[in-house]
Amino acid sequence: MTGDSFVDEALLKRVPRWRDYLEAKLGFRNHWYPVCFSREAPESEVKPVKLMGVDILLKRIDGKVYAMRDRCIHRGVKLSEKVECYTRSTITCWYHGFTYRWDNGVLCDVIASPNTPLIGRKKIQTFPVEEAKGLVFVFMGDEDYVPHPLSQDVPPTFLDDDMSVVGAAYTVGSNWRLGCENGIDDLHIYLHRESPLVPNTQRSLPLGHTDRPDDYFLLHEAEGEPKGVSTRTFKDAAPMAYEGSVEGRVVVHGTKMHQSPEEAAKKRTTGHFIAVPGVLRVDNFPYVGRFQFEWYVPLTEDSHLYIITIGKRCATDEERAEHEHEYVHRWRPVSLEGFNNQDIMAREALQPFYNNDRNWLEETLVREDNGIVHWREVCHRASQGVQKPSDVS
Amino acid sequence: MTGDSFVDEALLKRVPRWRDYLEAKLGFRNHWYPVCFSREAPESEVKPVKLMGVDILLKRIDGKVYAMRDRCIHRGVKLSEKVECYTRSTITCWYHGFTYRWDNGVLCDVIASPNTPLIGRKKIQTFPVEEAKGLVFVFMGDEDYVPHPLSQDVPPTFLDDDMSVVGAAYTVGSNWRLGCENGIDDLHIYLHRESPLVPNTQRSLPLGHTDRPDDYFLLHEAEGEPKGVSTRTFKDAAPMAYEGSVEGRVVVHGTKMHQSPEEAAKKRTTGHFIAVPGVLRVDNFPYVGRFQFEWYVPLTEDSHLYIITIGKRCATDEERAEHEHEYVHRWRPVSLEGFNNQDIMAREALQPFYNNDRNWLEETLVREDNGIVHWREVCHRASQGVQKPSDVS
Amino acid sequence: MTGDSFVDEALLKRVPRWRDYLEAKLGFRNHWYPVCFSREAPESEVKPVKLMGVDILLKRIDGKVYAMRDRCIHRGVKLSEKVECYTRSTITCWYHGFTYRWDNGVLCDVIASPNTPLIGRKKIQTFPVEEAKGLVFVFMGDEDYVPHPLSQDVPPTFLDDDMSVVGAAYTVGSNWRLGCENGIDDLHIYLHRESPLVPNTQRSLPLGHTDRPDDYFLLHEAEGEPKGVSTRTFKDAAPMAYEGSVEGRVVVHGTKMHQSPEEAAKKRTTGHFIAVPGVLRVDNFPYVGRFQFEWYVPLTEDSHLYIITIGKRCATDEERAEHEHEYVHRWRPVSLEGFNNQDIMAREALQPFYNNDRNWLEETLVREDNGIVHWREVCHRASQGVQKPSDVS
Repeated sequence: MTGDSFVDEALLKRVPRWRDYLEAKLGFRNHWYPVCFSREAPESEVKPVKLMGVDILLKRIDGKVYAMRDRCIHRGVKLSEKVECYTRSTITCWYHGFTYRWDNGVLCDVIASPNTPLIGRKKIQTFPVEEAKGLVFVFMGDEDYVPHPLSQDVPPTFLDDDMSVVGAAYTVGSNWRLGCENGIDDLHIYLHRESPLVPNTQRSLPLGHTDRPDDYFLLHEAEGEPKGVSTRTFKDAAPMAYEGSVEGRVVVHGTKMHQSPEEAAKKRTTGHFIAVPGVLRVDNFPYVGRFQFEWYVPLTEDSHLYIITIGKRCATDEERAEHEHEYVHRWRPVSLEGFNNQDIMAREALQPFYNNDRNWLEETLVREDNGIVHWREVCHRASQGVQKPSDVS
Repeated sequence: MTGDSFVDEALLKRVPRWRDYLEAKLGFRNHWYPVCFSREAPESEVKPVKLMGVDILLKRIDGKVYAMRDRCIHRGVKLSEKVECYTRSTITCWYHGFTYRWDNGVLCDVIASPNTPLIGRKKIQTFPVEEAKGLVFVFMGDEDYVPHPLSQDVPPTFLDDDMSVVGAAYTVGSNWRLGCENGIDDLHIYLHRESPLVPNTQRSLPLGHTDRPDDYFLLHEAEGEPKGVSTRTFKDAAPMAYEGSVEGRVVVHGTKMHQSPEEAAKKRTTGHFIAVPGVLRVDNFPYVGRFQFEWYVPLTEDSHLYIITIGKRCATDEERAEHEHEYVHRWRPVSLEGFNNQDIMAREALQPFYNNDRNWLEETLVREDNGIVHWREVCHRASQGVQKPSDVS
Repeated sequence: MTGDSFVDEALLKRVPRWRDYLEAKLGFRNHWYPVCFSREAPESEVKPVKLMGVDILLKRIDGKVYAMRDRCIHRGVKLSEKVECYTRSTITCWYHGFTYRWDNGVLCDVIASPNTPLIGRKKIQTFPVEEAKGLVFVFMGDEDYVPHPLSQDVPPTFLDDDMSVVGAAYTVGSNWRLGCENGIDDLHIYLHRESPLVPNTQRSLPLGHTDRPDDYFLLHEAEGEPKGVSTRTFKDAAPMAYEGSVEGRVVVHGTKMHQSPEEAAKKRTTGHFIAVPGVLRVDNFPYVGRFQFEWYVPLTEDSHLYIITIGKRCATDEERAEHEHEYVHRWRPVSLEGFNNQDIMAREALQPFYNNDRNWLEETLVREDNGIVHWREVCHRASQGVQKPSDVS
């Protein structure tokens, strides 16, 4: 760390096209991040979460969730060491009685010093909160930055009225960027060849691709819309390799099913869209008609919160209940814990290498990794600010 | 760490009035510190202790305690890895037989090289030792600094002939300065409102203060006397708050007892005196006629030895025995472990914030914290030297 | 660490005669190091080892052992996270199917991207391997450095045809240099005075030496030969001290046996030879006619692999079997685990002091430590390169 950066300036200079991405060890500021599921923040309970190195407290009051930095302005102790809420709209520090309003963070009382002129003049940091699709989103922003709509920080379709979303969250021992890069990695299907998802969905799963057209990726950088990278539909775009050879001899097979084109189409992922600040939509996954939305939320330099959700368009409560039932009994055991757990293993295996900042320049990428490179560059161009040591100290 | 300092020079420059205090992560040199109770250093036993990052060995010989650095001059191993004392007045290193005299540290023999010219010419570092009131004090000083009397490094009255002192020691997971600042914190009584000490002593315990006169503190900086900060008597000096309000509504109460002024006076702490290098006297605490003397002795950057003693003026052996009995059966369980344990929790909660040197400049102090600021400034002006990385390496 | 060095340049400048040695925290490059016993690398098994901070994979194919860096060139994951060998001559990365040849490291296939032009053009780092006397040696070398013969990196006689060698390996929690220096330390016999080896071999064991001639050491620096330091024969060269005195009084005794000169000679170690990059031969140890060969192989900054072997000249299979039987039933329990374990304790006790680079300049050496100083200087002059942070990142 030199000055107020997590990464050495000399290294950053060597990647001018994705400099901010290399520096964003704890993520990008001025974005919406999910920090937990709505169900984890019931009315009146004070819930501690972490986001981008910062300790945060959530509390739901009359249905609305508020977020406040979990650190008393007086002498820096965590309010969550011993939660004291004397009134519904305030929280009081256990040490000297500094009391803050949940809605605006204003210091409204100091029990041990009731006449102090600080009252009404000082405030604790608060964060804008939104809820959508059963997730609590917090805006990690600069003081003078007016939060943009949540819709700019999630992939298209996520907020659609008929999109029903269910899921779970896992803490992963790798930097959040390795989560993103594993998520959009076109070649890592090889890793999943023995996932229980394959027989469960009767899915053909190749081992990789043999080629890919130059215009395979679309970059999204329009003002006021989600920034990110998407793929064109996979169909025909990338000839699939179902046989793996070593030294000219076939040694491993994908799981090519003998099925009609119509059947095959029902079991095929058709594309993905990754958006800043680190959220991926996979289309028709884990099954036709489902969308996997997953987030890689920076916690610390070497851990992220991996939120996996599965969305399905549902018109009725019955359909929604059916989708939830299917999630609990099929996708959670078979896909989240039988397919995405392999991704978790891979990200944690990447961490020791990329934990050394210099190694970001020591990779040997193949052409099919260009989606990852596009992603790094889009992040850099879209950057509204990088989380710095001074933001978390 | 830049150069030979634990703290960045740029930060130190920003607090010219208490610069040395910010730098003194491992305490101030050229002072007397208690390292253990006398009862923990019985005749002939070699006892390892730590002080300000330095490993030290104690040994009592004919009643007098000697202190020596626990590191062989030859190749730096700890003598305490395997204690070898062939004679009463020496200790021998287990590795090559380097043998030192306890009284002056002189290398008097080298068993594996009996003719080496180093004998008689080299010495291991030794430290002056004093005992008082059942505590062993070590002087952590520069080579050319003649130790001043112990009386300059303890609060007045501690060494009085009739002062009988008993107590215990606890290792606390915070820097020593947070121990001091919690100890003299006028507002943290709020934290103690549910301590068992309150009902036990029928003490009125406010939640805080509403105001305080400008001349509340006395600074002690006279040559040859203890340096520090004391309070004028509490009586009338600081109107007490027995009710805590949040948003205009009373939500928490102190424990104001209905008792005559004479009764109340018997249960009131009347003042405190904190002295360099980090020792506090609290008057009439935990009860009228008792004095709490407590030390915050630097061990490592993030731990200190919290020595708590209770003194009482005793004229006879019977009175002393009664005082000790009261300590064991009343004050230790009710006050040390029912009141001061709350202070330990608070200091350990302060540590993550103040562990980041920059955060010493990010506090939001109230007016009632000026006792803490006075303390920092007196320490700076009284400083005879700061423990540096090179002193402990 | 400043720039690409483990040690601060300002410190290195202060020891011009052994600068490279002080810098070589992870050892010297362009040398042969044993990494395991041959018996630990059976045919077809993939075995992970560590050498000088680098993770390495071994595989024996048709009797010959190959060594490859345990880090995929693509994105840096360890191949050993999940070993996949589809053919006898290759290993495949579990993540994307990057496949390397054991014999030359060439990327011969990428299962997930079978047409990538990287195939045949890129390679993973491989290391020359030699086997001798039941040990697997790896050459940690620069790309353009042609490995010299193994015979230059072991003490004379080790490779002799009739030398039969058996032994074991221990991981020790100290830097490798402390292993070397303890090994050749002339004074540390004091430490061993109560080893079970002494009564077992009826050996006279002094506590130290009283004097030593100036020409006691021989430096070996001839081109094409092992570089190192040896002693002249101990006999008469260094008068032995069998009594240890403190303050003029004898307090500890060596184990001087009453035996004829012929008997005594049979139980006497007669000299040692330490060679770059850190291997010691002790002559007539643990008994007459045996040679202890031991290595201190750098693993990490604060650990080394301590390989202890005992060699004996054997003319027949029967003699070899007898030597092995004696090793298992006598020398391993009595000498390796009853004598050398004391050395392990000593090295781990040295580590906290020498872990601070500055303390290498704070020793107080005696004249008898000049063997250690010769060793440091010979290493510096012989240095073909120091392992740097960039070599292990």
